[in-house]
Amino acid sequence: MLRDAAVLIDGDHIAWVGPRGDVAAHHAAPLQEIEIDGVLFPGFIDCHTHGVFGAPRLDDHERRALGVDYKAIAAAGGGILQSVHDVRRRPEVELASLTRSRLAALLKGGATTIEVKSGYGLELEAELKQLRVVRQLAGELSATLIPTFLGAHEVPPEYRGKRAEYVRLVCEEMIPAVARERLARCCDVFCEPGVFSAAESRQILTAAARYGLALKLHADELEGSGGAELAVELGALSADHLAAISDTGIRALAGSSTVAVLLPGTMIFLGKRSQAPARRLIEAGAAVALATDFNPGTSPTLSLPLVMALGVSQLGLRHAEAVTAVTINAAAALGLAADRGQIAPGCVADLVVAAVDDWREVAYWMGAGVVSAVWTAGSACPA
Amino acid sequence: MLRDAAVLIDGDHIAWVGPRGDVAAHHAAPLQEIEIDGVLFPGFIDCHTHGVFGAPRLDDHERRALGVDYKAIAAAGGGILQSVHDVRRRPEVELASLTRSRLAALLKGGATTIEVKSGYGLELEAELKQLRVVRQLAGELSATLIPTFLGAHEVPPEYRGKRAEYVRLVCEEMIPAVARERLARCCDVFCEPGVFSAAESRQILTAAARYGLALKLHADELEGSGGAELAVELGALSADHLAAISDTGIRALAGSSTVAVLLPGTMIFLGKRSQAPARRLIEAGAAVALATDFNPGTSPTLSLPLVMALGVSQLGLRHAEAVTAVTINAAAALGLAADRGQIAPGCVADLVVAAVDDWREVAYWMGAGVVSAVWTAGSACPA
Repeated sequence: MLRDAAVLIDGDHIAWVGPRGDVAAHHAAPLQEIEIDGVLFPGFIDCHTHGVFGAPRLDDHERRALGVDYKAIAAAGGGILQSVHDVRRRPEVELASLTRSRLAALLKGGATTIEVKSGYGLELEAELKQLRVVRQLAGELSATLIPTFLGAHEVPPEYRGKRAEYVRLVCEEMIPAVARERLARCCDVFCEPGVFSAAESRQILTAAARYGLALKLHADELEGSGGAELAVELGALSADHLAAISDTGIRALAGSSTVAVLLPGTMIFLGKRSQAPARRLIEAGAAVALATDFNPGTSPTLSLPLVMALGVSQLGLRHAEAVTAVTINAAAALGLAADRGQIAPGCVADLVVAAVDDWREVAYWMGAGVVSAVWTAGSACPA
Repeated sequence: MLRDAAVLIDGDHIAWVGPRGDVAAHHAAPLQEIEIDGVLFPGFIDCHTHGVFGAPRLDDHERRALGVDYKAIAAAGGGILQSVHDVRRRPEVELASLTRSRLAALLKGGATTIEVKSGYGLELEAELKQLRVVRQLAGELSATLIPTFLGAHEVPPEYRGKRAEYVRLVCEEMIPAVARERLARCCDVFCEPGVFSAAESRQILTAAARYGLALKLHADELEGSGGAELAVELGALSADHLAAISDTGIRALAGSSTVAVLLPGTMIFLGKRSQAPARRLIEAGAAVALATDFNPGTSPTLSLPLVMALGVSQLGLRHAEAVTAVTINAAAALGLAADRGQIAPGCVADLVVAAVDDWREVAYWMGAGVVSAVWTAGSACPA
């Protein structure tokens, strides 16, 4: 914590940070000075979103509130496949327009770097369409967007009873096509009993690694299935969700550089009464990140500060751990820790101002717009 | 639900609402027309806040996250008494300034009517100071503020071991002084084992009723103590919290006009794994309202739309029930149902616009600023 500090920005990078009185000794050229009132944070990093979708799933929300279970919701036309049907038929231009305003809201809440997954296409063209939307918006929005291919989000209806064929399609057609067009940096799989098994996840991620994609894994969300251990074994950047992680999984993460990405907003939105064992992960030595999991079915959450407050209240994080979880640890979960997630020389000049007196307030006021200004790559974002 | 509708406002009241095509038949004078894009709701009503306080209780938040219990937090100088100490010594002008910006944030989130309790004074002058802040801000802010006297929020340290004396002070000095200066509309008591017993609560509320104050009760929050039944017996406007309400309490509320005010944000911020039995209350026939419980220790929540989303996800409300819970039912919890909480002729022209396509989205996007415009008494509030 520096009080009365200054940050020197040179172009799109941070050149120096230190006591305000020492600025003069660290620059030669004339300065453009901007006074900040409040607390300056590194730009927040939302390292897990499913940000490209069509309509919100409002019926699912109410059905779940009334106690209808997952299978009955799917049978009624809801669940992931509702979003898949929507994304498949919706024109790319419409998807881009809907996604633009949603990612802009995340940016306004301080998310200067946002990971965005595909996974509502589940067929080659629709998956590519989602990733092209991300590429287009990366050129339009001030935030840095990190695209992740998640063709293995669910087995699509046309492959029911032919799982192996779908896995082959993902490995042999989708991953090569995504890599060829350079449409994704990472590949993710939903590893969960009833979705993709650990063996299928290994097969898909192994194929992705051959094509140079970094790896991530939806692991141990609702039931444990050794997902965390698999993520570590494969050298994945992150294992995400982890509400049902085992002791073995905790030990595996603790002994690795794979980041534990926790998503408390999802458990709250789903009405669950449990959360991932964040303190046990931290005390074992794992790196913990937080993210919104922004998606239309289980987490229509557009605010990292809200997720940070839930991190403290629901996961038992210290305020400092909540800040680390959306900055340097979240950067590591995207392979970006070399130059993001800190206010330090050489880092990209992504900065967030919270209009608060005490830095801890950023993870305290729930539902308040505490972020008052955002810079990306050295430039102020429009309010 | 009206689509393509119009609302006619005459001065500070709603004169007519109906299909847009029928406007011409319902007015004579020239109109000033304002086009709305989105969904128009009655102004939201936050019927339970402790909005006048000094510093946020950040240490309590982290201590609780790390598993420190209520008593140990109090022993370390936290808890309600930290806010009491703060409010007692803080100048009225400072309290007004802090409260102004916080209530303005609630208003921006759509709360056009806000109940504000005292209860961090616990001595005559400091209680009056809090209520005078509310009166001052009622004249400055566009929101309607409803002041509630909560001198029986806790037994202050100087009356430890002399509870009966404090109860007598509340009944015989504070309530008469508050009534004389017309500083409160309602009187509330924190009825909970270890705070004020049902007998003490009855004594205080009975005194308040003699002075013409409407009654409210913090009831059955952490442990059941017959609070809901007492609220009904005394004809209180509302019984609030209710996470530990008994079946008898549910039946009592269902057979009465006392509103059940539920506060799901508090349980989330406290890291609790349970919530009030909202569906059982509704199905029994009770009227359910939602509120932020905005306060520095257990619910620094500045957004009614977030509370509505938690109402659906955590309490099992339908979207329509969540809307009712912050409009007409919340109006009833303040004795204001005659002219607030609806878009209807004769009602105060308090209106909220949500920039959404489907009205249910107001209780869906978590942490998003869905409210795009607010009117109070027929006038637009500054953005």
